[in-house]
Amino acid sequence: MTDSIDEAVRRLVDEREIVGLAVRYCLAVDARDYDALRDVFVADATACFAGRDEIGLEAIIGRCRDTLDPCDATQHLVSNHLVTLEGDTATAQCELQAQHVRRGGDGGSTFTLGGRYRDRVTRTPAGWRIAHRELEVVWIAGNPGVLGRPPGP
Amino acid sequence: MTDSIDEAVRRLVDEREIVGLAVRYCLAVDARDYDALRDVFVADATACFAGRDEIGLEAIIGRCRDTLDPCDATQHLVSNHLVTLEGDTATAQCELQAQHVRRGGDGGSTFTLGGRYRDRVTRTPAGWRIAHRELEVVWIAGNPGVLGRPPGP
Amino acid sequence: MTDSIDEAVRRLVDEREIVGLAVRYCLAVDARDYDALRDVFVADATACFAGRDEIGLEAIIGRCRDTLDPCDATQHLVSNHLVTLEGDTATAQCELQAQHVRRGGDGGSTFTLGGRYRDRVTRTPAGWRIAHRELEVVWIAGNPGVLGRPPGP
Repeated sequence: MTDSIDEAVRRLVDEREIVGLAVRYCLAVDARDYDALRDVFVADATACFAGRDEIGLEAIIGRCRDTLDPCDATQHLVSNHLVTLEGDTATAQCELQAQHVRRGGDGGSTFTLGGRYRDRVTRTPAGWRIAHRELEVVWIAGNPGVLGRPPGP
Repeated sequence: MTDSIDEAVRRLVDEREIVGLAVRYCLAVDARDYDALRDVFVADATACFAGRDEIGLEAIIGRCRDTLDPCDATQHLVSNHLVTLEGDTATAQCELQAQHVRRGGDGGSTFTLGGRYRDRVTRTPAGWRIAHRELEVVWIAGNPGVLGRPPGP
Repeated sequence: MTDSIDEAVRRLVDEREIVGLAVRYCLAVDARDYDALRDVFVADATACFAGRDEIGLEAIIGRCRDTLDPCDATQHLVSNHLVTLEGDTATAQCELQAQHVRRGGDGGSTFTLGGRYRDRVTRTPAGWRIAHRELEVVWIAGNPGVLGRPPGP
């Protein structure tokens, strides 16, 4: 191990917190607790979802709300976390599988999106936060009408 | 980092073992090695699956057996682990995607369940163990008849 | 904790790198960057995919290429990582859910494979590498014709 023990521990703790950001984002949107996103992103964060324009935090929250509120249930799974630390900033990416469900008289309907989040994250006095998030869509299946807003650009 | 290095390492090791509990549960049930669940739960553990009554360890094992034995194959994926340590106890939650397969003359059939485990875990002389588990079902898809017992209450 | 702090940190760092191997394999094949597999496996690595014959690294790369190149998109999710360290070698296993997509005039088609990787990994001067990989297929769904080569033996 080339790191000193102290340095190795600091890296492990940082990586754990950065992976935790991706998890807390999922919990926030799946619980429709959009205000909790303010503890995931920095105040001047930006995001590009699925090749659309870059938007700021209020628009990120609005986009999540518009897309997910019409669903009866959603589940965002993230895995394959890869974090590259560079001091007080880092890049982080993970794979996403998001399930969206609308229950209905006809047995309901689902829409599944497989994608990849690529984040730039930054250390703040309150902990690590996402400064920029990109969502690349890899595959979709099911009925996009389940969403309040289609996933495309 | 507010923790001392030693304290940070102890937390990382604890979290790793607690995440390992969720993984070992999956391996046990997917291998139909129900006795291995005795090394995942404390002897007086309780669980609530999908809003049903609270049950003890023997009933947990019986419920897993009754539900999964009729399946030809199952795969329990867990991700989005979130652990909150409080000394010798902790809360742990993760997302679950469970696939259940029954092969058959007509090409077979699958039942998929997306949910969330919420666990209270406790440190024992033998390591961390689950003291209480709740399974919240978020979505289901496919044919519930694949299971020996339906997932509802 | 029975380990000394230093030993515990070394184990955490080793486990993190070994889990990273499984993640980098997925990134390489999903990006069709097959040469990157040379930084995931040792040069004399072997693999058994889905009960087929044991093959060497060039054949592993060829098999990935033949299977995945016809797909328009793939996503390999790995989770449930379990690493058992034994000095400079380790066993590692994880669950896999691989999605394969071919887009087409008829709305396209998908093939999903659920399985389990069981790896023997080894420490090299360049870091941890996979020495032997086995893929056990647990379930499949969808249209195997999406692949360039069927997943069976």
